[in-house]
Amino acid sequence: MNPPSLDKTSLERHTSTQFDAELEDIRERVLSMGGLVESQIADAARALIEGDGQLGERVARQDYRVNAAEVDIDELCTRIIAKRQPQASDLRLVLAVAKTITDLERIGDEAEKIGRFACQVASRQRPASAFRQIETLASHVRQMLRDALDAFARLDTHAALAVSRADIEVDREYESTIRECMTFMMEDPRTITPMLDLLWSVKALERIGDHATNIGEYVVYLVGGRNVRHTSVEAIEQVVATTSGSAHKSDD
Amino acid sequence: MNPPSLDKTSLERHTSTQFDAELEDIRERVLSMGGLVESQIADAARALIEGDGQLGERVARQDYRVNAAEVDIDELCTRIIAKRQPQASDLRLVLAVAKTITDLERIGDEAEKIGRFACQVASRQRPASAFRQIETLASHVRQMLRDALDAFARLDTHAALAVSRADIEVDREYESTIRECMTFMMEDPRTITPMLDLLWSVKALERIGDHATNIGEYVVYLVGGRNVRHTSVEAIEQVVATTSGSAHKSDD
Repeated sequence: MNPPSLDKTSLERHTSTQFDAELEDIRERVLSMGGLVESQIADAARALIEGDGQLGERVARQDYRVNAAEVDIDELCTRIIAKRQPQASDLRLVLAVAKTITDLERIGDEAEKIGRFACQVASRQRPASAFRQIETLASHVRQMLRDALDAFARLDTHAALAVSRADIEVDREYESTIRECMTFMMEDPRTITPMLDLLWSVKALERIGDHATNIGEYVVYLVGGRNVRHTSVEAIEQVVATTSGSAHKSDD
Repeated sequence: MNPPSLDKTSLERHTSTQFDAELEDIRERVLSMGGLVESQIADAARALIEGDGQLGERVARQDYRVNAAEVDIDELCTRIIAKRQPQASDLRLVLAVAKTITDLERIGDEAEKIGRFACQVASRQRPASAFRQIETLASHVRQMLRDALDAFARLDTHAALAVSRADIEVDREYESTIRECMTFMMEDPRTITPMLDLLWSVKALERIGDHATNIGEYVVYLVGGRNVRHTSVEAIEQVVATTSGSAHKSDD
């Protein structure tokens, strides 16, 4: 009658259903914080590309919401560790959440910076082709964040690995965008000031890709118990190949 | 002569002296990792300023040591939480360590970047006055890191607060250095390419200051149990004023 659902397994493992609710709560909060951060990136990129200074300012002003989410979730993680003394995959979940929110918060900071640069760039003349490249880059790093959060939600190490792979492509796009901006500056030194604001924004987008990659790596750790930070994509591939894709199978 | 008697207090509280040894071990490892990172910054800045490409390359190559330290200490933290189920200030110590090493690792990344830029900058002509400013900035962020690590070693919230204050000054120096670099670029567009490498290095130094500030904030959390991330220096001052300066007095 009863399929082996996650709830049942959890009930067997945990003496407290309240504990399950707490773990589910921090998981959901991470995803909701991730959604907020994602919309901050989208708005910041739109403000920059469309020259919408007001939107840029709104993004910058709203960063406190991301910060508040980080502080709240971090406190919940500490409380769960102190009260529940989680073990194995439960502990890994709490620790992965604590790390993930740090990267989400830093992504929020980068979005805030882009928002601020957007305000400065808004009033100036802007070379259309550089903006097309920035638009592509922004859309790719947003997709990386979305994929990393999906991987976290579904405990999907293959999806997490795809984020690391995407970062290689994003780094290439970043280099190419930087080169294009430099060409504009050299061709017309009057564009140096506005182009620098663009360069900082492009740099911020590249950093967002790095943070999304970190989040993907925490998913691999969460599922397989292996820390894959500072390893190559190939090494992560090997770890992913030997893990099941579900955090609740590996060590219970 | 006597620092806050951490050992005695800990012995009274813990039934296990092994546990004390483990806490002391991660504390020492953080300080040793901090020392390594500090020398990476020093070398990277020297490579940049003196145009020493070989030194820059060595810094970049040695980043793996910082990464390895982060992975090791992080694993120890996880093991301590799982095995010892620390409470109150002990738990805060482990969590503060886990966060501190993330920032130390990111500082290592920034030093690596500066090392790489130093290789590129080495062969080019460099305006002396910009380098003087960079030298000052580099020396200030190194001092910030040293002060943050001292604050961590001595559980000294006043020293930690001083790091937050110093970051305000460092941000001003950063802005002024960026402006000077931009002036050079505008005066002589042939300097755009080398100046951009310098700009990225200056940015990396500013980020190091931010990470040192984070470490200082973890010390305030560790000692007083209050998360002061995303608050103003004034708010941190208030928290510091109401805490004793020793992590083992506030909640035991």
